[in-house]
Amino acid sequence: MTTRREPQRYLKIADFLREEILSGRLAVGKPLPSESELCELFSTSRGPVRQAIATLRGEGRISSGRGRRSVVLGDFRAERFESTYSVYSRFQEAGIEVQQKILQVSRQPADATVAAALHCEIDTPVIYLHRQRLINGINRVIQHHFFPYEIGRCLLEYDETTGSLHRMLTSRGVHFDNVYRLVNIEFAEPEDARALDVTEGFPLWHSEQRIHSHSSKPVEFSIFKFRADRMSISMSSVRGTRSPLQISLAETVSS
Amino acid sequence: MTTRREPQRYLKIADFLREEILSGRLAVGKPLPSESELCELFSTSRGPVRQAIATLRGEGRISSGRGRRSVVLGDFRAERFESTYSVYSRFQEAGIEVQQKILQVSRQPADATVAAALHCEIDTPVIYLHRQRLINGINRVIQHHFFPYEIGRCLLEYDETTGSLHRMLTSRGVHFDNVYRLVNIEFAEPEDARALDVTEGFPLWHSEQRIHSHSSKPVEFSIFKFRADRMSISMSSVRGTRSPLQISLAETVSS
Repeated sequence: MTTRREPQRYLKIADFLREEILSGRLAVGKPLPSESELCELFSTSRGPVRQAIATLRGEGRISSGRGRRSVVLGDFRAERFESTYSVYSRFQEAGIEVQQKILQVSRQPADATVAAALHCEIDTPVIYLHRQRLINGINRVIQHHFFPYEIGRCLLEYDETTGSLHRMLTSRGVHFDNVYRLVNIEFAEPEDARALDVTEGFPLWHSEQRIHSHSSKPVEFSIFKFRADRMSISMSSVRGTRSPLQISLAETVSS
Repeated sequence: MTTRREPQRYLKIADFLREEILSGRLAVGKPLPSESELCELFSTSRGPVRQAIATLRGEGRISSGRGRRSVVLGDFRAERFESTYSVYSRFQEAGIEVQQKILQVSRQPADATVAAALHCEIDTPVIYLHRQRLINGINRVIQHHFFPYEIGRCLLEYDETTGSLHRMLTSRGVHFDNVYRLVNIEFAEPEDARALDVTEGFPLWHSEQRIHSHSSKPVEFSIFKFRADRMSISMSSVRGTRSPLQISLAETVSS
């Protein structure tokens, strides 16, 4: 397909600029090379160069355009797509080794929440996987995963030695294309408090992931819980871009 | 400047597609128009069309490309840039009317944290503004703002009737171009507990904003605190894009 060519070119230019920033060769506070310099360097027209620059701006790495040359804002790392739904990937990115303990794999009827998330009827059979993630033998994350039956039924074979759950499913042809996450703080109920070794009522980070295929079909619904005091979030935002984020302080969120 | 033309065109196409999605004319699960259709509609080459599509993908609104037509993922609203640093803007976006009570405006020497954030020496005079944000008369947000002296000195004239702090500064030529946010959960100390009418030790959302000009000069450092149980975050992420976000579950975050 001839139409594949140009997108690859802007990604190459974006990768080049990102690497220049992360390596420190393009230092914080310094301006980017000019559009013409980048056009010459990559033997390309302005289109892909501008798209590469817009990509880096969307990642919060360079300041806004507005007719002036953007400057480098920071050399922080942005979250990998895989880390939005894979705790394994997130800890691996942070250089932390994580173990797992699988508590349950079962076929069970979907309740209302799961049915809504997986776009199926209530009581449709789904595959449920319950596990804990441990660091140095201490449980850090409680995970509940729900899959459509056809996707998850291979998980009866999945155990602690198999490695990443999502890599196994990917190798079987499941395509994790996009994720919608919803996060709240909740107060630990007795069961979660015991599992995470905190007092009842301790604040937990409650994160729900709805993962879809390219064509927007649900492939997984998951819930992660961990101590809220062990979490930090950072974000870089640039005028003229919109982040895929919504923080709500609504009065309607129940306490 | 001739170079201004094309970026405006891709933004126009992106605005068109975003509006089609938000209005529901382009429904969730439906494919985008083809590149050639969009080229014809906007009498343009493929470059701006692709950049517009990449922009929407970065906003988490459409699925990944990979040679197939992207489909619409959701009609959620992404956070406005202004809402990353302005509580006024954030509540306005949510349709909630918010009042303010100014507790202190002062010139004072920068401590180590403020000096690091504003890139100045310790003990350099800075302007400090302390205020609360109220909804229906109840205090919801504690805010501490620090400005370089030259930027903030006009704030001695700022009071409850003046309207948005950031609009006033913008009208005086201060350019808020980009924001780096860092969020943690902390447990309420006595003073904050009293101000927010919660028990001591109640979990608070602690958010720090470092705001810079286009050339990366610090224009403001702020700290917002509010009840963690009143907050929710949602995010949409698409394979092949990087969000300007980093969530850390590091073991090194102290409890």
